[in-house]
Amino acid sequence: MARLVVVGGVAAGMSGASKVRRLAPDWEVVVLEAGEDPSYGACGLPYWIGGVTPRMEQLYALDAGEITARGIDLRLRQRVTGLTEGRKLVQVEDVASGRSYEEPYDALLVATGARAMLPSIKDLDGKNLFTLHDLGDGRRLSRFLAEERPRSALIWGTGYIGLEMAENLSARGISVTMINRSSRVLRKLVEPLKAVLIEELEARGAKVLLETRVLEVIKDGERVTALNTDRGRMGADLFLVATGVKPATGFLAGSPVPMAENGAIRVDERCATGVHGVWAAGDCCEVLHRVTGRPVYLPMGTTANKMGRVAGSNIAGEHARFPGVVGTAIVKVFGLEAGVTGLGPKEARKAGFDVVEAYAKVRSRAGYYPGGGAVHVHLTADRRGRLLGGQVVGPEGTKGRVDTLAVAVTCEIKIEELAMMDVAYAPPFAPVWDPLLVAAGILRKKLRG
Amino acid sequence: MARLVVVGGVAAGMSGASKVRRLAPDWEVVVLEAGEDPSYGACGLPYWIGGVTPRMEQLYALDAGEITARGIDLRLRQRVTGLTEGRKLVQVEDVASGRSYEEPYDALLVATGARAMLPSIKDLDGKNLFTLHDLGDGRRLSRFLAEERPRSALIWGTGYIGLEMAENLSARGISVTMINRSSRVLRKLVEPLKAVLIEELEARGAKVLLETRVLEVIKDGERVTALNTDRGRMGADLFLVATGVKPATGFLAGSPVPMAENGAIRVDERCATGVHGVWAAGDCCEVLHRVTGRPVYLPMGTTANKMGRVAGSNIAGEHARFPGVVGTAIVKVFGLEAGVTGLGPKEARKAGFDVVEAYAKVRSRAGYYPGGGAVHVHLTADRRGRLLGGQVVGPEGTKGRVDTLAVAVTCEIKIEELAMMDVAYAPPFAPVWDPLLVAAGILRKKLRG
Repeated sequence: MARLVVVGGVAAGMSGASKVRRLAPDWEVVVLEAGEDPSYGACGLPYWIGGVTPRMEQLYALDAGEITARGIDLRLRQRVTGLTEGRKLVQVEDVASGRSYEEPYDALLVATGARAMLPSIKDLDGKNLFTLHDLGDGRRLSRFLAEERPRSALIWGTGYIGLEMAENLSARGISVTMINRSSRVLRKLVEPLKAVLIEELEARGAKVLLETRVLEVIKDGERVTALNTDRGRMGADLFLVATGVKPATGFLAGSPVPMAENGAIRVDERCATGVHGVWAAGDCCEVLHRVTGRPVYLPMGTTANKMGRVAGSNIAGEHARFPGVVGTAIVKVFGLEAGVTGLGPKEARKAGFDVVEAYAKVRSRAGYYPGGGAVHVHLTADRRGRLLGGQVVGPEGTKGRVDTLAVAVTCEIKIEELAMMDVAYAPPFAPVWDPLLVAAGILRKKLRG
Repeated sequence: MARLVVVGGVAAGMSGASKVRRLAPDWEVVVLEAGEDPSYGACGLPYWIGGVTPRMEQLYALDAGEITARGIDLRLRQRVTGLTEGRKLVQVEDVASGRSYEEPYDALLVATGARAMLPSIKDLDGKNLFTLHDLGDGRRLSRFLAEERPRSALIWGTGYIGLEMAENLSARGISVTMINRSSRVLRKLVEPLKAVLIEELEARGAKVLLETRVLEVIKDGERVTALNTDRGRMGADLFLVATGVKPATGFLAGSPVPMAENGAIRVDERCATGVHGVWAAGDCCEVLHRVTGRPVYLPMGTTANKMGRVAGSNIAGEHARFPGVVGTAIVKVFGLEAGVTGLGPKEARKAGFDVVEAYAKVRSRAGYYPGGGAVHVHLTADRRGRLLGGQVVGPEGTKGRVDTLAVAVTCEIKIEELAMMDVAYAPPFAPVWDPLLVAAGILRKKLRG
């Protein structure tokens, strides 16, 4: 009998554990989770906070009983602190008692995920300052909202967590201001798509201040009262820092497991680290970007689930591969949906492509069909006509259009092909010329001209 | 100065005329349209009838004034009755006066579209029996509905016009029964997707009777009172026949323009017929099916628009190509959206593929995100793992999923690739494992097993 130890019991870890459990019934499967929760959908946290998802328990993908019933030995509040790879042991700390012990493994799956990364500025803490990365963060914020009924919130960060929280805090009647040091919104949304999204935020009452630098944290005892910025002092009852995450791989320091500069684990397409018996998956890893052909740190729940399954299959002796990502993401922001895939024009130039771009604004439905609104599409191609990426902002259908582009980017489709693609049409869903085809047609003209 | 004569002024014809007008300003562009309406969106007819689109004029893509302002010589109610290709002349009849004359051309674009095809059964006509193919049909039906306020309708045909009309007649409070001789719904929707769609129709009060053969038309003077079928007599106040269309190419009989058995014009990828100076586009043509590599008759508004542009570009001296279709279609039926692309399992077997299929039923949103419902996905692949086609029925997101599959089919993607595709995820739009990926995962397992 062999023994799999999984470090981390959320998306990648639980996917890997379940896969091994199914494929290799004779294996012992132990999952060590530092937190107090079994597998849950962290992407649902903003919606639980906003009241869209009424009960926290709904976020659990599986509850502890179901996991145990699967034959997985789930141990909560067990933090792995080190790896002795030569002897195939991990060092573990029982969080409650502080007691340390060792666990032996035949296969180790590192699935520790990421943790919220706070900007390095003095005094950035307080009982009214939050991050929103795990269920513990969510509980703390939820309690604060219930007990203190804050009327204003400052969100630091305009990535998808910041954007989703702008909507969900607003839904609770809280007045929201968003700031970001850079000019970026949702990764690298280009103009005019970025302006359209900001316009929607502001129309719904959320103020957005980009290129705003925080100089100082102003506190009153245990509370943050304001951030001093180069645009003035910004006070709020509640502060949410959503400036990004970093891989939770500190326990591997000094081990031979290969890591990128930011601490992300380097794995091959089988999710193997190269260290015997050590596999890794999810937000603690780099992934291959299929357009640049280079590794990139793009933590995503979907990727974590895929990598967990691939790692599990390979641990159980199958041959599975994770082919990488094209950088697809989507976010709902009030009445708009914004999504990206592939490379934006800046990234594409940086990767060495000779870039041609096009933008189109087209209705989401046939002109005579009521409802819907303007869909904004931006496409990036190389001079030889290969689609490199696309971005979409619109009131509906964004996921479908971004997915369509994601497949097209993955398949290295030519713009000429995309412009004549046989996409679905009926009046409630699109005009006769779908916004994607219109944008591709404009790009094709530029490539010829 | 050269002279383009376009026969037919709707989707393909007006697209071609406009393209030539833009690219070749020195050409004279004459459009001969047999009907009384300029370019309009025929796909909107059911929604105008249902009251979703309040005014008929909203269906016009361009009104006659705009067309003339573009420098196109639009002549309504001029029916082309013959072609003398050697002398580059068409014979035309002025519908109002019955007067015949000839028009010379340097280039001729045949864009006569299709006409409704009635089953060959005796007495299938009457003042309460309708087809719904062009604006004239729509006007007649609209007038009848306003004047006679029918309470029941029998729809013969379960293709997309029949399905859209079931919804739109129901919206007017009319009790709907649908019949079809074959067991087909929306081309060849497979089980259980077909059953899901029929269940929705019946839940909304529309009865659906497949494999029902009409034996006799029962009339009372100028009215049809019932159809006698092998399932009994079916009476109604209104009868709508939506059993398909055929190419409107009668005027080419005896000409050297190559046509398929059903009268559809055979064109190459440039939309040339092979007869000097004669081009064709739209519902009067066959198109290349990119999966089978064979010509097929699949009249669609999107295809007509694309072919019209390609023909126009080539007539004006550019080099454009229409690469063909993969057979994509979508329809909204009450609260469901049903779409297909590529080959279904039967078609694929008929085309010589060794077929493997998979079906998945997955929620349209994250489990904890309210709303949405079950998405049903069916995929068809060949034994070597190439995706051949897919079908989707669900409450939302069907267009996007079908388009994603359309690109995947066009690019001859492997199921293994699709199962690991980097599609967009956020809780309002999909579960972490998108229904498409779940179906592809099931299919991958079958391919391995």
